[in-house]
Amino acid sequence: MEANIEFITSGSITSPQGFHAGATYAGINKKARSGLDLGILFSEAPCIATALFTTNRIKAAPVVLSQQRLQGRRTLAIVVNSGCANACTGEQGFADATEMADLAAESIGISPEDVLVASTGVIGLPLPMKLIKAGIEQIVLSREGGHELARAMMTTDTLPKETAVAARADESEFTIGGVAKGSGMIHPELATMLCFLTTDAAVDIDFLKLALRKAVDISFNMVSIDGDTSPNDMVLIMANGLAGNEPILPDTSQASAFQQALDQVCVHLAKCIARDGEGAGKLIEVTVSGASSVTEARLAARTVVSSPLVKAAIHGSDPNWGRIMAAVGRSGAEVVESKIDLYIDNICLAKAGYQLPFDKEEVARILRSPEVPISLQLNLGTAAATAWGCDLSEEYVAINSQYMT
Amino acid sequence: MEANIEFITSGSITSPQGFHAGATYAGINKKARSGLDLGILFSEAPCIATALFTTNRIKAAPVVLSQQRLQGRRTLAIVVNSGCANACTGEQGFADATEMADLAAESIGISPEDVLVASTGVIGLPLPMKLIKAGIEQIVLSREGGHELARAMMTTDTLPKETAVAARADESEFTIGGVAKGSGMIHPELATMLCFLTTDAAVDIDFLKLALRKAVDISFNMVSIDGDTSPNDMVLIMANGLAGNEPILPDTSQASAFQQALDQVCVHLAKCIARDGEGAGKLIEVTVSGASSVTEARLAARTVVSSPLVKAAIHGSDPNWGRIMAAVGRSGAEVVESKIDLYIDNICLAKAGYQLPFDKEEVARILRSPEVPISLQLNLGTAAATAWGCDLSEEYVAINSQYMT
Repeated sequence: MEANIEFITSGSITSPQGFHAGATYAGINKKARSGLDLGILFSEAPCIATALFTTNRIKAAPVVLSQQRLQGRRTLAIVVNSGCANACTGEQGFADATEMADLAAESIGISPEDVLVASTGVIGLPLPMKLIKAGIEQIVLSREGGHELARAMMTTDTLPKETAVAARADESEFTIGGVAKGSGMIHPELATMLCFLTTDAAVDIDFLKLALRKAVDISFNMVSIDGDTSPNDMVLIMANGLAGNEPILPDTSQASAFQQALDQVCVHLAKCIARDGEGAGKLIEVTVSGASSVTEARLAARTVVSSPLVKAAIHGSDPNWGRIMAAVGRSGAEVVESKIDLYIDNICLAKAGYQLPFDKEEVARILRSPEVPISLQLNLGTAAATAWGCDLSEEYVAINSQYMT
Repeated sequence: MEANIEFITSGSITSPQGFHAGATYAGINKKARSGLDLGILFSEAPCIATALFTTNRIKAAPVVLSQQRLQGRRTLAIVVNSGCANACTGEQGFADATEMADLAAESIGISPEDVLVASTGVIGLPLPMKLIKAGIEQIVLSREGGHELARAMMTTDTLPKETAVAARADESEFTIGGVAKGSGMIHPELATMLCFLTTDAAVDIDFLKLALRKAVDISFNMVSIDGDTSPNDMVLIMANGLAGNEPILPDTSQASAFQQALDQVCVHLAKCIARDGEGAGKLIEVTVSGASSVTEARLAARTVVSSPLVKAAIHGSDPNWGRIMAAVGRSGAEVVESKIDLYIDNICLAKAGYQLPFDKEEVARILRSPEVPISLQLNLGTAAATAWGCDLSEEYVAINSQYMT
């Protein structure tokens, strides 16, 4: 059964029942273009929660702390700052992250163990605890505070990234909200993907873990800005059960509706991140179909969307399809050159691995548009995957080579 | 025993005895800044030969043809062009590559099966066979022609890349010459690494295969310009035995001398390629030591040297050591954050994973120099590896986003 899922106008992380948020400018992120750099998300009812963290072997202190606190405990809040990653900061960094949670807990009036922490910003510098302390005291939580939280997480993102959907399946109705930040890196080192998701659905924890992994695999794990993985990456979901539904269990129609809704929120936010990659002017969407397995399709799609040569060609609206073929060829995915069909939007540039005559002006017109859809039909099987990225511009380099000295 | 190995002033691919070369401008590469785009290398005595080819599953026609011809046959010559890769060109491409070998064989007066072919340039376009035919008729071979061949292989390389060494071990003396082209991609799609090596040493074929693999592993396989692998990549060695030595067998002092000499030639050419990466202003050399295995050391060094964020920071002479830590952390190599020491030249920026106070002006001075040495001591074992790359500049993007339309 297809679930009834609707995007909520001006939806945010506080759209689901019982979630409150607020933010302030604490002075941590000197270049905060959103005017905010410290925020808190709080649920009035205890949440079950699960998260996926960076695969980088260098893990930031807030990641280590939040990983520990998520081991089977309930969660009530998360405090987040931009401007300083609190990564490569040793034991002092861990003590600072712990104190940051303590301060947020005290301000809200809850137990410190129920608070998680996330940070994004420059690697290697200590958290300015005086600013954090003074800032947390300023934060006022409200049911409309989701939009402020979205702005407080931004580093050099040019836009806040947030959404919410309302879902109905059988008798139950629930809401899922989400907020994310991507990699805008005007100030060197600000490269972290953070995403917080909230829901008022009552959900079985094992199902929630599985659902989050599935949604992330087809959304955030299919985005590449520049191939660099931050030590601070984190995708968290908190479920407070205030929708009053029967807890969602695997293999039910409710579970199917929840998964569809979560997928839509995550894919929406992932595309926001790709579109707002640093220096980016275009969203690139690469779909690989006809692959012999989903793994091969994912590998091929991700390799094409992250190829610097493909990204630079699209920046220049240059219909260099050979670069796309070369990228899919080196991806490691099983491909047979003489079977590959290549499309830009609905125009076939190469059939069976060989170029077709095509209207260069028409293709260039598509390449100049803000969303560039590329598709590859491998003609080997039935598996497919889609990946998102952005073009590579001179501005990317300018952004990332600014002098600290 | 340390072999006696000396670089030859103005050495080239024709420095070893019995090798002849020549080149012409055939009009294939309209933007040939070297003024040449078609060349032939010929040995007056039959060569044993072996080569390593691209790992891209999309293989250019000249790669497929040369792979077939190297199956146990002797080799006498290779004909090479720039401006057109003859890749993604189907059966016509293979027929064109075969005809190109036929034309070269006819011009030299040898059998077509003894001729290999290499191409570099735009992917997806057919070889202009009329220009190739007329060009081959123009080529005059000479013992000094190595320098011309080096220029004919250039696409947007700013300098030809060639060298030769003379080696002496025990009673025998021999010479190894080498020529390479790298990835300068001012004209879209010109991204191929080609390297031809010659020697007058008599060499056992099994030893030669092993020696080439070893040399390439520590040289060309440790270079990254932008992570894209061309369908045309090729490293070929031809040995004609005219030095008159006893054929070199494994595990002899001659073998050791040959390996050392070959390593030096390949590392020299690999560094030339990195230094001349498109848009590059600096050579970056990353050495990882104290790794638990050579595989881990290689992985870590290659990941750091190819990180866009590290490359952009070095372009801006920005001492953002956190980016280097983040790259090594995501490399997949075994690392423990609290054990890593990080140096730029001989200045320690981080000890045991934690920042040290350092002279930012002095570090910025090193980062502004044409060669930037970075070293990471993982303090886990005794294995080490070095990788080479270049900075990421706005010019890289400008070069690769030019309109074809």
